Amino acid sequence: MKASLASSFDLARCVSPGVAAQPAYTPGEQPQEAGWTKLNTNENPFPPSPKVVAAIRAELGGTGNTLRLYPSPASSPLRAAAAKFHGVAEENVLAGNGSDDVLNLLVRAFSCPENPAAMLEPSYSLYPVLAGLNTARMKKIPVSLEGEFSVDAVADSGAKLFFLTNPNAPLGIAFSPEQIAAVLERFPGVVVVDEAYAPFADRDATGLLGAYPNLVISRTFSKAYALAGMRIGYALADAAVIAVLDRVRDSYNLDRLAQAAGVAALEDRAYYDDVIARIRAVRESTAKELRRRGWRVLPSQANFLMAAPVSSAGASGPEIAAACFAFLKTHKVLVRYFPNHPLTAPFLRISIGSAEEMQTFLNTIDAWAQ
Amino acid sequence: MKASLASSFDLARCVSPGVAAQPAYTPGEQPQEAGWTKLNTNENPFPPSPKVVAAIRAELGGTGNTLRLYPSPASSPLRAAAAKFHGVAEENVLAGNGSDDVLNLLVRAFSCPENPAAMLEPSYSLYPVLAGLNTARMKKIPVSLEGEFSVDAVADSGAKLFFLTNPNAPLGIAFSPEQIAAVLERFPGVVVVDEAYAPFADRDATGLLGAYPNLVISRTFSKAYALAGMRIGYALADAAVIAVLDRVRDSYNLDRLAQAAGVAALEDRAYYDDVIARIRAVRESTAKELRRRGWRVLPSQANFLMAAPVSSAGASGPEIAAACFAFLKTHKVLVRYFPNHPLTAPFLRISIGSAEEMQTFLNTIDAWAQ
Repeated sequence: MKASLASSFDLARCVSPGVAAQPAYTPGEQPQEAGWTKLNTNENPFPPSPKVVAAIRAELGGTGNTLRLYPSPASSPLRAAAAKFHGVAEENVLAGNGSDDVLNLLVRAFSCPENPAAMLEPSYSLYPVLAGLNTARMKKIPVSLEGEFSVDAVADSGAKLFFLTNPNAPLGIAFSPEQIAAVLERFPGVVVVDEAYAPFADRDATGLLGAYPNLVISRTFSKAYALAGMRIGYALADAAVIAVLDRVRDSYNLDRLAQAAGVAALEDRAYYDDVIARIRAVRESTAKELRRRGWRVLPSQANFLMAAPVSSAGASGPEIAAACFAFLKTHKVLVRYFPNHPLTAPFLRISIGSAEEMQTFLNTIDAWAQ
Repeated sequence: MKASLASSFDLARCVSPGVAAQPAYTPGEQPQEAGWTKLNTNENPFPPSPKVVAAIRAELGGTGNTLRLYPSPASSPLRAAAAKFHGVAEENVLAGNGSDDVLNLLVRAFSCPENPAAMLEPSYSLYPVLAGLNTARMKKIPVSLEGEFSVDAVADSGAKLFFLTNPNAPLGIAFSPEQIAAVLERFPGVVVVDEAYAPFADRDATGLLGAYPNLVISRTFSKAYALAGMRIGYALADAAVIAVLDRVRDSYNLDRLAQAAGVAALEDRAYYDDVIARIRAVRESTAKELRRRGWRVLPSQANFLMAAPVSSAGASGPEIAAACFAFLKTHKVLVRYFPNHPLTAPFLRISIGSAEEMQTFLNTIDAWAQ
């Protein structure tokens, strides 16, 4: 019986071509044990607002009785809170199970074998994986360490969907509203401004909402709101675009506790303004310390620094970065290294942790450079 | 400037063909205000286990500090708990953001424009929506109210993916292990036995795991575990199938609190065995009450009843069912009505609530039948 089965079932023949061809995305390491100085996935060193914790407790109640009921399918209270936060209407907001969910919905809605997507390279390495799984090609437009790229190349890419990460990850540099507007004017498709890191920046693209029917802004609660563990994100866009995404979305994509947490986070501006100001201050002081050691540090508008290590002999480059990364890891300091692109290979991406964590990091690189 | 934009951006031209052609899935109504006797989406009338609530509180801690960190990407503790529960290995388990996430991953992995999917009709109306969004056709194989269907038709459908809902929703009837094994033997693709309601049944398909490399069983915490509000589900299958689904899955598809809740639920068998026994008892007593009133009630192995209302004049049929549904809704009793299929149109699907809720339901239909 099993022999006949084995001969009739051929798993490889059942897998969709896009899925079969697409290597897996590799997320940053998430060691679950204590003892690490974890500066590799841009988490927030501060806990979420006490009001977030209180909102989760309130939803949970004494017996968790509401958990037996389905959540609001559209995450309506969260959409309303995000709409209020940004001064738009609820129909301009879509809630996602993390902003990765939002990005995936965008790829599914606006790319396909006939319609490629496009992105800047280097930027978020999840985009091409999502496109590949959807059997869509991904056009890569080069961006320089200074944030220069060809708007013509974007406009003429043949894509219907373009990802502009602002501030860019992993570079940390921000694009000007003029650059973004130029893309929105010229690109004949949906422009996703992925603003995962925008709360740490001086400027963002939300001022362009309303003026451009092809603009989508995606946001996450994983960085500025210290809720990476809760998987919450949202998109802001023209109501017609949101309506398309809504049809692709899972009916109940956010659980009750995540919805409650997201609402409370958006309502406690004072807490998060303070958290963001502290992170920005540590970012600048850490950048200064690294530059004092001769490291090249890109000007960051995010909660991380892209910085090129310098060896005790004064050398830098991919080998030096790889060696520094390995030394840090041996000493339980995790940062992120992107060796697969010539622009990023000489650099390490260092998340901004607490002042104490950054001191541990600096002490460890000083030990390495001796 | 805006005029030039409007002329260059054509949203309809950017939407993927599958998405453009697919009407939205309509989930059951989820009124967020109190006062309803809610028997429409098969939620559990009992709260989740106190150990689930304790596990969420423990993860939350005093300050919610772990929430700032990403969760286990693979939901490893939850996979381990499910593996232990079913006596399989961790590599045989995939965790999903609700079982709808699992179903969506299956459609994306194993259907495409060239490879149709197949399902019994009537069954879960989400399947064709998921296939449509993936630009895949859905072959529908008729099933009778007695659970009869043609295994030949399934085997010869040309599909690479077949959904067998066991017990069937909305009918409530269960298939025999022999029927399921016959499909697994003959169908040259992946067979998904959707066991959302299996914990309420006398038998399930888990005994077939290991013997069939093409078997996937999907489970949810939304029904038996009273956690519809937390979005947790999982798949059980051969490790090779799980590996494919893992590549399509979002990197962090379950949040920390959902993972903690799922583990605690699987570990408190005693609590849930008791909950399930109570629901089965109320199911049987309610069925008896309805039959006493002349209603045709399908033999249910789930936590709902499919039952055909009978009017005061002794008539039944689609118009009678529609009238009864409307009367119940006017009196704030929500059940589910599926008018779009001739088999289901004379019936209402009534979730099994508490004994008190079922009494409210019975009183209301008695008022209607007068």
